[in-house]
Amino acid sequence: MSALSEGLTQIVIPLASLVGIGFALLQWFLVSRVKLLSQDSSNGYKQKLIESDEEEEGINNLEISSKCTEIQHAISVGANSFLFTEYKYLGIFMCVFGAIIFLFLGSVKGFSTKSEPCTYSQGNTCKPALANAIFSTIAFLLGALTSVLSGYLGMKIATYANARTTLEARKGVGKAFITAFRSGAVMGFLLAANGLLVLYVSINLFKLYYGDDWEGLYESITGYGLGGSSMALFGRVGGGIYTKAADVGADLVGKVERNIPEDDPRNPAVIADNVGDNVGDIAGMGSDLFGSYAESSCAALFVASISSFGISHEFTAMSYPLLISSMGIVVCLITTLFATDLFEIKKVSDIEPSLKRQLLISTVLMTAGIAVVSFFALPSEFTLFNFGTEKEVKNWHLFFCVAIGLWAGLIIGYTTEYYTSNAYSPVQDVADACRTGAATNVIFGLALGYKSVIIPIFAIAIAIYVSFSLAAMYGIAVAALGMLSTIATGLAIDAYGPISDNAGGIAEMAGMSHKIRERTDALDAAGNTTAAIGKGFAIGSAALVSLALFGAYVSRAGIKTVDVLTPKAFIGLIVGAMLPYWFSAMTMKSVGSAALKMVEEVRRQFNTIPGLMEGRVKPDYANCVKISTDASLREMIPPGALVMLTPLIVGTLFGVETLAGVLAGALVSGVQVAISASNTGGAWDNAKKYIEAGVSEHAKSLGPKGSECHKAAVIGDTIGDPLKDTSGPSLNILIKLMAVESLVFAPFFAAHGGFLFKFI
Amino acid sequence: MSALSEGLTQIVIPLASLVGIGFALLQWFLVSRVKLLSQDSSNGYKQKLIESDEEEEGINNLEISSKCTEIQHAISVGANSFLFTEYKYLGIFMCVFGAIIFLFLGSVKGFSTKSEPCTYSQGNTCKPALANAIFSTIAFLLGALTSVLSGYLGMKIATYANARTTLEARKGVGKAFITAFRSGAVMGFLLAANGLLVLYVSINLFKLYYGDDWEGLYESITGYGLGGSSMALFGRVGGGIYTKAADVGADLVGKVERNIPEDDPRNPAVIADNVGDNVGDIAGMGSDLFGSYAESSCAALFVASISSFGISHEFTAMSYPLLISSMGIVVCLITTLFATDLFEIKKVSDIEPSLKRQLLISTVLMTAGIAVVSFFALPSEFTLFNFGTEKEVKNWHLFFCVAIGLWAGLIIGYTTEYYTSNAYSPVQDVADACRTGAATNVIFGLALGYKSVIIPIFAIAIAIYVSFSLAAMYGIAVAALGMLSTIATGLAIDAYGPISDNAGGIAEMAGMSHKIRERTDALDAAGNTTAAIGKGFAIGSAALVSLALFGAYVSRAGIKTVDVLTPKAFIGLIVGAMLPYWFSAMTMKSVGSAALKMVEEVRRQFNTIPGLMEGRVKPDYANCVKISTDASLREMIPPGALVMLTPLIVGTLFGVETLAGVLAGALVSGVQVAISASNTGGAWDNAKKYIEAGVSEHAKSLGPKGSECHKAAVIGDTIGDPLKDTSGPSLNILIKLMAVESLVFAPFFAAHGGFLFKFI
Repeated sequence: MSALSEGLTQIVIPLASLVGIGFALLQWFLVSRVKLLSQDSSNGYKQKLIESDEEEEGINNLEISSKCTEIQHAISVGANSFLFTEYKYLGIFMCVFGAIIFLFLGSVKGFSTKSEPCTYSQGNTCKPALANAIFSTIAFLLGALTSVLSGYLGMKIATYANARTTLEARKGVGKAFITAFRSGAVMGFLLAANGLLVLYVSINLFKLYYGDDWEGLYESITGYGLGGSSMALFGRVGGGIYTKAADVGADLVGKVERNIPEDDPRNPAVIADNVGDNVGDIAGMGSDLFGSYAESSCAALFVASISSFGISHEFTAMSYPLLISSMGIVVCLITTLFATDLFEIKKVSDIEPSLKRQLLISTVLMTAGIAVVSFFALPSEFTLFNFGTEKEVKNWHLFFCVAIGLWAGLIIGYTTEYYTSNAYSPVQDVADACRTGAATNVIFGLALGYKSVIIPIFAIAIAIYVSFSLAAMYGIAVAALGMLSTIATGLAIDAYGPISDNAGGIAEMAGMSHKIRERTDALDAAGNTTAAIGKGFAIGSAALVSLALFGAYVSRAGIKTVDVLTPKAFIGLIVGAMLPYWFSAMTMKSVGSAALKMVEEVRRQFNTIPGLMEGRVKPDYANCVKISTDASLREMIPPGALVMLTPLIVGTLFGVETLAGVLAGALVSGVQVAISASNTGGAWDNAKKYIEAGVSEHAKSLGPKGSECHKAAVIGDTIGDPLKDTSGPSLNILIKLMAVESLVFAPFFAAHGGFLFKFI
Repeated sequence: MSALSEGLTQIVIPLASLVGIGFALLQWFLVSRVKLLSQDSSNGYKQKLIESDEEEEGINNLEISSKCTEIQHAISVGANSFLFTEYKYLGIFMCVFGAIIFLFLGSVKGFSTKSEPCTYSQGNTCKPALANAIFSTIAFLLGALTSVLSGYLGMKIATYANARTTLEARKGVGKAFITAFRSGAVMGFLLAANGLLVLYVSINLFKLYYGDDWEGLYESITGYGLGGSSMALFGRVGGGIYTKAADVGADLVGKVERNIPEDDPRNPAVIADNVGDNVGDIAGMGSDLFGSYAESSCAALFVASISSFGISHEFTAMSYPLLISSMGIVVCLITTLFATDLFEIKKVSDIEPSLKRQLLISTVLMTAGIAVVSFFALPSEFTLFNFGTEKEVKNWHLFFCVAIGLWAGLIIGYTTEYYTSNAYSPVQDVADACRTGAATNVIFGLALGYKSVIIPIFAIAIAIYVSFSLAAMYGIAVAALGMLSTIATGLAIDAYGPISDNAGGIAEMAGMSHKIRERTDALDAAGNTTAAIGKGFAIGSAALVSLALFGAYVSRAGIKTVDVLTPKAFIGLIVGAMLPYWFSAMTMKSVGSAALKMVEEVRRQFNTIPGLMEGRVKPDYANCVKISTDASLREMIPPGALVMLTPLIVGTLFGVETLAGVLAGALVSGVQVAISASNTGGAWDNAKKYIEAGVSEHAKSLGPKGSECHKAAVIGDTIGDPLKDTSGPSLNILIKLMAVESLVFAPFFAAHGGFLFKFI
């Protein structure tokens, strides 16, 4: 039996969630102490005092403050309106797909209300399949709503914090950093705590009906992961297309043709660009990581429910995944204090080490945390389900599973940093290749992306081998959870990037001095790397999560082996490996076409609005926002449909073995495409920033801004935009989502699937 | 029993080979009737009559003829010297690797000379393992030599034909086409016939020793495939780096910086560029397709030898793969007559349809040919080995297997054409994206490449499913053979491309009129598409071949299932899927670095040689040739080592299951990377040509040469160079070679492999 009693578990988990939420609110309060001029409803400005204890340039300049407020307001309105339009579509999707889940799962036993003998705990009676259909649908809706909420809250705090970061930048880089970082932390903690709390509450509420039928209970709960991930897909794809259409469009005309700086207020697409950061990089990523978190928890819970924990009803041991997450919140809270209170950022070069330290501190502390949880929450020995057989496992085995996931995440994070930060030779080589033009820049960048796959894949492979050997599929699920256990910190340093990016944009648009822009640029450059690290985590955890979900799917579909030597599985494998390419083709083409439209609109405005280039007249920002909005909502449907329909079609027509092949193929191929796309894009972006910043002798020889080398670097950066912010990060949702969807629909496919082969 | 007697089989196969060789020599003779001025040893020119029945511009211009002769001589010398240097290295590799094969296989039974009980035909006695080690090594060396010979002969005829094509272009596009096409046919037939003949003779010679031990005989013969493919790897990679370093280097300085046309004699890298076409696109591709052919034959023979054919010693049925190839030679011979004698090319727009017709005619005729062979060579019913079980198969089942491979090849070919020819909308869209600069061009091009994967993968998947369902792994092996049965025609239309490219280069360098250049350009544009088609075939057949080899490997290694749910297989799968990225990173970086060196050298020559830009002084061609040679020889080693060592290391340390995972992963991921890379590159090249040719209103609006759009298109073309000519086509060798190497070493891995896991 576990050392931790069921009663204490029931207290610890909600308590940790509430602590996380409280901490997030505290951070929000601290950010809110940076005062803005609030915009009066009657088109005037009411002044508020800007607190400051030192006198610096423009610190009491009311015009600048009011301009910042105005811009922030415009960005916030744009982001709000886009998300609400998007959520309207997603609402329809949720209803339709909820109905599909109900109908498919309900039909497994012909909507019968009769109780059934259990599948795994033999001799017992379980609730009817109809109940599972209903509760899976409810769990799906809960997951979807939580995901939407996570994205929305992230966007809210980000658009609340961006102008505040700009204003704080006047006081120095340290102050600006703290503001941006605290805002990131708000998002990280809200999301982690909220996800945990909703899951915990749902389990307890579902238990009121299910009682002792834990098999059915945790089977239904998997709908939560599906809901979370399907919203994340649309959030990532829609947001990704939005942000990159605006970004590419703004850059191609503004920077390349008109030779005006990035974020110049004369550029009509500049507001859309800044809105995009908030809806794509913040809201999309928030939903994405929430999805990963929800899925890995659900995969672990499902496997546990059909193992000895579930069969002998050990609640504390069952809740091991939730307890790990609870510990994660506490560890991240302590870690955050290192950045906000224990160390102070004094100069630009402190920023990146400080963020990297966050990763290391949280990993080290969490390792101890895992040991504590594993010792108190688990019985010293138990059996786990392993594809029909049973596996004897000890509690310290699970410690190693979670820890290896955690440390694999750190290795992936650091590798990503090495390949995307311009402090190291890979990015510098790419920058150097700009000497001979855009073509060699692109060739070197692509090669860098391909190469950056090697170490993460080995890290993932080792994590898989060790955790599977120790604790079968449960081991892999908790390894994924381990990688995501420090999600609050990961999200904080990840969200910090787009906030700084926006802050820089606001500084430029408000016409603030070069010095301020330099400070926000330094924050942003570090943010580029942390964004790439965040994507590395997202992809690495997605690989583990989908493997765990895949294992759960295989168990639930009643397959004993997935043998690539059978033609059914092999054609699944090769077609599955093709899906990431199909998906990338769609999303990249979408960004390309939307960007072309944006370019035309921006050109039109420059050509037809007199006085625009001279800065006398304001451009029509709203039209650009509309183009991005329309394009992203229209274009997110085909890739979304590809991902959502593939498991349904393959499962129904070709059956469970082929679907298993598809999942394995999409997983092993998608991980490579995703990692290489993200890192290539990140490297090009930072190669450009390296030339612009001109810090070293080498960098100076390539610059300055506007040189031939720099132009070549800008082309690389533009190509990288859809790779790193649209197709790359969406791919990890593709592999996770197909796996979790297959898991949820597994009973249906097992009962009625393989239609086509039955006829041949 | 088969309707065809053993005696007749023994006559038919060598006869078909000799007919093929005879036909190739006839074509060579016809090409040789176009007379060049032969270069006298004492530095003067001796005039030969140029036959002509119509008077056209410059047709008797001796100066031009002698210039062409001189340039051809320079290209031929460059290609010869590169290949000989390369072969020196390959000779060392062959000896070393031959020794490895002997030692590894010999050690399986401790170099014992005692006969062993057979593995598959139980109750019988087979030759000792040491004999298999010796004969595998011999087969390896024979395959390697034949591969080298194939590449070398292709290069010889190509450098013999290029200037002749140029001279014939003065008489019209039809004459030039015939010359280029006949030369391609020489290569196609020599290679197909030679490969068949050597294989046939080897089998008969090996039989003198092996007698009734067909298991051992055909096991040793697999070394032939390994030899062929390993030479192909170095040929493709070395040649690919050579040609693209020169091409990229020449373009970046010549076209982009100095604004001189392609192939301008003032460009110091121009000879290296033309040499590259011959050593990369011709010799490399020849070795590659020969390797595919040898491997699919070996895979089919091996599986047959452990099936009822082998066990009951039915020589004719055993020789089914060789008879299919024999029929292929006859069918291709007839097909060639359609292009050279039955239809005449009168205008530029006839070229591409004529080449496409070749594919269609050969496929239709071959379908009938397969039916004939299947009916006469096979007993009406027999059993095939299927991973330990037996499968009852009828002769018409095998007809469907071969035919579906053949038609899948045609579908892949036509899909490739659709995505890479500028007659269709995909390439036109890419060209259109150049309006907004190089970045959108690249984004659209990458998206096109990703999208072009979809149909080929479905075609391959269906071919695999059908052929496997009908005749297990043997079905897949003969499906691959079906796809390659029209190899002579495939190679003819493929080799025709680089010959035309060279012809255009010679016309430019010899200062011939614009009209001539336009004609060769038209040939070349069609050649770009056929080159892409050829690559499509190479990749599609490689996928089938490696699957067949994979199946043979699994049988020989004694594995019953390759279950992706076991950690050993799964980590193999994900690491295998990573290998194509690692390999591509190496080759792309190699091309990039070599191109940078070339750029520096070309710039140096332009800057330091006075009178070069004015055309008064000749550049130092030899130095550029040397840079390409050195770079390609040095840089081909790491990717070559990656491919050759991976199976050895994985098999020895991790064992047969992990290696099976690696092979499956590399296969399903490598196919996607290879197809998308080849098609992206082909599309960019033709998008550029589309703008340059300016045939339609749309194309004119993007051009002319030198416009901003065109510059963006040139950047795309340059990026595509290493994708389509180095990394893309090398990847199919990667997947085939790892599979055949695993097959050859399978007895060793099965006996001594999995070192590391044994210790843990």
